Amino acid sequence: MEKLKKYVSVKDEDQFYHQGAVELLVFNFLLILTILTIWLFKNHRFRFLHETGGAMLYGLVMGLIIRYATKAPDVDSGTVYECEKLKSGPSTLLINITNQVYEYQYKREVSHHNVNGHHGNAMLQKMTFDPSIFFNILLPPIIFHAGYSLKKRHFFRNLGSILTYAFLGTAISCIVIGLIMYGFVKAMLHIGQLKGWEFHFTDCLFFGSLMSATDPVTVLAIFHELHVDTDLYTLLFGESVLNDAVAIVLTYSISIYSPKENPNAFDAAAFFQSVGNFLGIFAGSFAMGSSYAVVTALISFMHLTKFTKLCEFPMLETGLFFLLSWSAFLSAEAAGLTGIVAVLFCGVTQAHYTYNNLSPDSKMRTKQLFEFMNFLAENVIFCYMGLALFTFQNHIFNPLFIFGAFVAVFVARACNIYPLSFLLNLGRKQKIPRNFQHMMMFSGLRGAIAFALAIRDTESQPKQMMFTTALLIVFFTVWVFGGGTTPMLTWLQIRVGIDPDEDLKAEAINQTASDLDKNTTKAESAWLFRMWYGFDHKYLKPILTHAGPPLTTTLPQWCNPVARLLTSPSAYGDQLKDDGTDYIINNDELTENYESSAHIPGPAQDRTGFTQATGKENIHEGDLGLGGYELQLEHTAGQPHMNSLA
Amino acid sequence: MEKLKKYVSVKDEDQFYHQGAVELLVFNFLLILTILTIWLFKNHRFRFLHETGGAMLYGLVMGLIIRYATKAPDVDSGTVYECEKLKSGPSTLLINITNQVYEYQYKREVSHHNVNGHHGNAMLQKMTFDPSIFFNILLPPIIFHAGYSLKKRHFFRNLGSILTYAFLGTAISCIVIGLIMYGFVKAMLHIGQLKGWEFHFTDCLFFGSLMSATDPVTVLAIFHELHVDTDLYTLLFGESVLNDAVAIVLTYSISIYSPKENPNAFDAAAFFQSVGNFLGIFAGSFAMGSSYAVVTALISFMHLTKFTKLCEFPMLETGLFFLLSWSAFLSAEAAGLTGIVAVLFCGVTQAHYTYNNLSPDSKMRTKQLFEFMNFLAENVIFCYMGLALFTFQNHIFNPLFIFGAFVAVFVARACNIYPLSFLLNLGRKQKIPRNFQHMMMFSGLRGAIAFALAIRDTESQPKQMMFTTALLIVFFTVWVFGGGTTPMLTWLQIRVGIDPDEDLKAEAINQTASDLDKNTTKAESAWLFRMWYGFDHKYLKPILTHAGPPLTTTLPQWCNPVARLLTSPSAYGDQLKDDGTDYIINNDELTENYESSAHIPGPAQDRTGFTQATGKENIHEGDLGLGGYELQLEHTAGQPHMNSLA
Repeated sequence: MEKLKKYVSVKDEDQFYHQGAVELLVFNFLLILTILTIWLFKNHRFRFLHETGGAMLYGLVMGLIIRYATKAPDVDSGTVYECEKLKSGPSTLLINITNQVYEYQYKREVSHHNVNGHHGNAMLQKMTFDPSIFFNILLPPIIFHAGYSLKKRHFFRNLGSILTYAFLGTAISCIVIGLIMYGFVKAMLHIGQLKGWEFHFTDCLFFGSLMSATDPVTVLAIFHELHVDTDLYTLLFGESVLNDAVAIVLTYSISIYSPKENPNAFDAAAFFQSVGNFLGIFAGSFAMGSSYAVVTALISFMHLTKFTKLCEFPMLETGLFFLLSWSAFLSAEAAGLTGIVAVLFCGVTQAHYTYNNLSPDSKMRTKQLFEFMNFLAENVIFCYMGLALFTFQNHIFNPLFIFGAFVAVFVARACNIYPLSFLLNLGRKQKIPRNFQHMMMFSGLRGAIAFALAIRDTESQPKQMMFTTALLIVFFTVWVFGGGTTPMLTWLQIRVGIDPDEDLKAEAINQTASDLDKNTTKAESAWLFRMWYGFDHKYLKPILTHAGPPLTTTLPQWCNPVARLLTSPSAYGDQLKDDGTDYIINNDELTENYESSAHIPGPAQDRTGFTQATGKENIHEGDLGLGGYELQLEHTAGQPHMNSLA
Repeated sequence: MEKLKKYVSVKDEDQFYHQGAVELLVFNFLLILTILTIWLFKNHRFRFLHETGGAMLYGLVMGLIIRYATKAPDVDSGTVYECEKLKSGPSTLLINITNQVYEYQYKREVSHHNVNGHHGNAMLQKMTFDPSIFFNILLPPIIFHAGYSLKKRHFFRNLGSILTYAFLGTAISCIVIGLIMYGFVKAMLHIGQLKGWEFHFTDCLFFGSLMSATDPVTVLAIFHELHVDTDLYTLLFGESVLNDAVAIVLTYSISIYSPKENPNAFDAAAFFQSVGNFLGIFAGSFAMGSSYAVVTALISFMHLTKFTKLCEFPMLETGLFFLLSWSAFLSAEAAGLTGIVAVLFCGVTQAHYTYNNLSPDSKMRTKQLFEFMNFLAENVIFCYMGLALFTFQNHIFNPLFIFGAFVAVFVARACNIYPLSFLLNLGRKQKIPRNFQHMMMFSGLRGAIAFALAIRDTESQPKQMMFTTALLIVFFTVWVFGGGTTPMLTWLQIRVGIDPDEDLKAEAINQTASDLDKNTTKAESAWLFRMWYGFDHKYLKPILTHAGPPLTTTLPQWCNPVARLLTSPSAYGDQLKDDGTDYIINNDELTENYESSAHIPGPAQDRTGFTQATGKENIHEGDLGLGGYELQLEHTAGQPHMNSLA
């Protein structure tokens, strides 16, 4: 056998494929185990450990096995070779070893202190996969799904509060964690730890920003299962989703914050540059994501002569929808913006416009596709987090830093929720009650985003210590707080078992009824939101979707030729078909509740005070919904009722 | 900026992420373009260029742009560095360059003649992605989908012929191509080409085996669109799907065929070892794939006390189904078998058993999911094939070899189809007519599998020449033969516009009617198949699915306790619910025809002579279907009718 070297080479290569297969198989096995466990838990209605917690636990055990039961590292590993001829690291290196040329691909820079014996264990190495896989493959579907399944009506009603929590709250959280950690780091330096490390205030702020990303997965899944109060749900959902986007951009802005002189001193120019970066990146990503969605909406809406509409071909439609949404992410990344933010707003915009243009088949398909991808990606990430505790090779466990981080995270959460809620309650007609505030405080889990941000850079020792600490905080919060959600809800006497559609229907009827004197309802919403809603309804929806009134009726008389050009012929017949928003809300049930069997969505029967529907339709709906409304009123009588900041 | 090195390092890393994003974006862009083109083509009913051909064309143009419009290669590329200290290539290499350690990962062995200036262009390099991605990510969904959407009834009716074409035909094709190419190589050596190359007969056979894999994508898509005669469709579909599996295992077996002494001389021991390898790998992969499917069926069928069935949670069900099917592939790969073969038979078995146990929601989900994945993977592969012509850096164009390969491929196809059809017609009651044979001859396109097998090993010069040649043959056959399918069908007067359900229904009624005297129908099928069918229906289906008669009625009396244990309680009520097979056939429409909008499948009304259904049900079905049967008879009167080899 040894005679024929070329056959051996083929076999070697096959060996490599098989290794890739083994690695994937381990993940598959973990996921299968997780699914079977979820099934078991669902059967026994266990809620003390959520599926994400379970996935993490399995990952942990598997990591332990891989760490201690796989073969010893290669002999050559951990040895650093000198190469004087090279000036910098090329992306590909050709090396002549015993008269055979091998190609090596650049992977990363390694700090001298990281060069240790573990490097060579091929299995361990394969298992600690590239953070870019997280950012490019696993996170986008989760975030897109979050945006796509946003309960828009509730979201916009609470928009002011959500934005306050997400932007101001995250900033507060970041600064508070940064300050506390800086104190701890100073103390550690004082007692002689961290010798010779570079650990600046910006590093503490970096840690603060990445630890400020709360997890939208675990708590919300439980909330959804229990049908917790819709307003609380929306507040938490909106906060955690937007807050992820904010934290990502914040982390990036801080990482490129580079004061000219002393890294510890405050450099106003660099600070404002960072703020500028933050705003620029956020706005740019937002624009990128929305514009891709608008392009998708336009393509799916297109009605050229002699052309069959795209919705006649559901597969092409779904494919285009999927690819354009992913492209929003990739384009943002390629342009140096933040893909996650882009894909979030792309999802929101797709749900608002494109969804209306899709064929019924594509509506189902896209929903189910993203739901499924979300489900898989979520479980992979949580499995991987469990794995990382044992497979990551450069952990630095520092008890003081870890203790400090735990303190900082909770103090920061408190500084975020309570003062902001107090301020918001000054402006809100429907206050955020105390028990909601406590629940929001309790629900500040850290999850995938914090982990992904931490693993993105683990080169220097401070960053490694941060990664280790972040991982432990994720474990603790997901297991303890995630598991404690149900008891906490009971203890805080927060109402559960609410059907958001019913809730909404009641609202809608309320609005429809008061539509007769048009001012009372409108006054409750923020004027900015109202203006936007009017503009959207009158101009954007008719241009981008089949929904809404035809442009010919909303535009001034002199615009008629343009309006006629832009209006879909079908829109004339479909004047009353403004069921876009409601459709999504109705569909949320379908999307998130994967234990119920499918029900095909019909157009919802609720309508806001802003629609231009004819009186006949209004009356019809009033008739339909009134009974439900009264029923609902009784149900919610004892509860305070919320509305967004005016 | 240069002062703070660590910030620069973060930026560098970000640069790397962005490059990954750009690369993916290029593919997304190509796919979007392809989808829009398909849409355009579908509108204008263009058939001269199939979507796969279109995808390839766009890939080609994009490859041209990347090749000639991107920046020049890195300075360091193409330089080989010496390293005396190393004995062999470790999987990870740490290199100290100007006091900074860089980590490099082993990619591959490079032959000395391949070390050229192109190596360093990062964009080109990223675009020529790892063949393992093909085998582990892109091919499995395509092959699984093929198995999952197999028209089982038609397939089994023609099983004998299909197996003959797939096994014997592929072997003939491989040997004929090998012999012809060996002749050409001898001639080339004679006129002084290929100096200093090692080019043995086994290499020619290797080329023969990889070129024997016909493409199941392009022609069948067109056939399906045109609703070509079902028997021709089934013959071609079955042949090309199974033939891929055979060609893959054959290629692998030949690549590990290592005669002891002279590589050109025939070594009986090594030959039989290769044959043994082939059979072992094929059987092992088959067993692996089927057993995963059986496990899935068992899990989805499980009915423990106090346990909700898995089908109450469609998302978990879909997830499990997906993961177990993928695991079949990965396990086979990890065990040194052929994943593609495993996943094919896994798909067939899943469709046969598991599908019956899925909830209606999961049925739709899995169908649509695999359909979508198939659609994307297919287009990615064809785009990538186009790209490869310009981005692959070690093409060897040898006109004589290419000419020889074209001749060999067509001669081999002829030696496969015509003699085997002649032999088969001796045994078949319903002959394979001449025009079908010509069409099968014409439909021998080479596609993704041939390409993937060729790209898997491109180290030596002969292999590079083979890859280049294979690529050109793929281009030619997909564009010319793919585009010529419709004219060819017209020219050969093959009937189109046939509804396979109708066709089948007619068959079924025919069988149901003759069920009264039970022997006539059965005689038409092969006895082996009949035995298997009976066994499957009586024992396997009741154990693995809700369909079929309860075990208590099919097992002998003394087995009753065991039977009662194994039978689902619902099976007693569902005695008549043996609609599994038919379900799949009915659903095929839904699956493959992605231009039609969704229709929810109802249980089909046809039934074979083998079912144990009660007379009442039979009569009911006869009533339903008889009109259609007569209609169908008129329609098919002028056509010869086929049945499988007895």
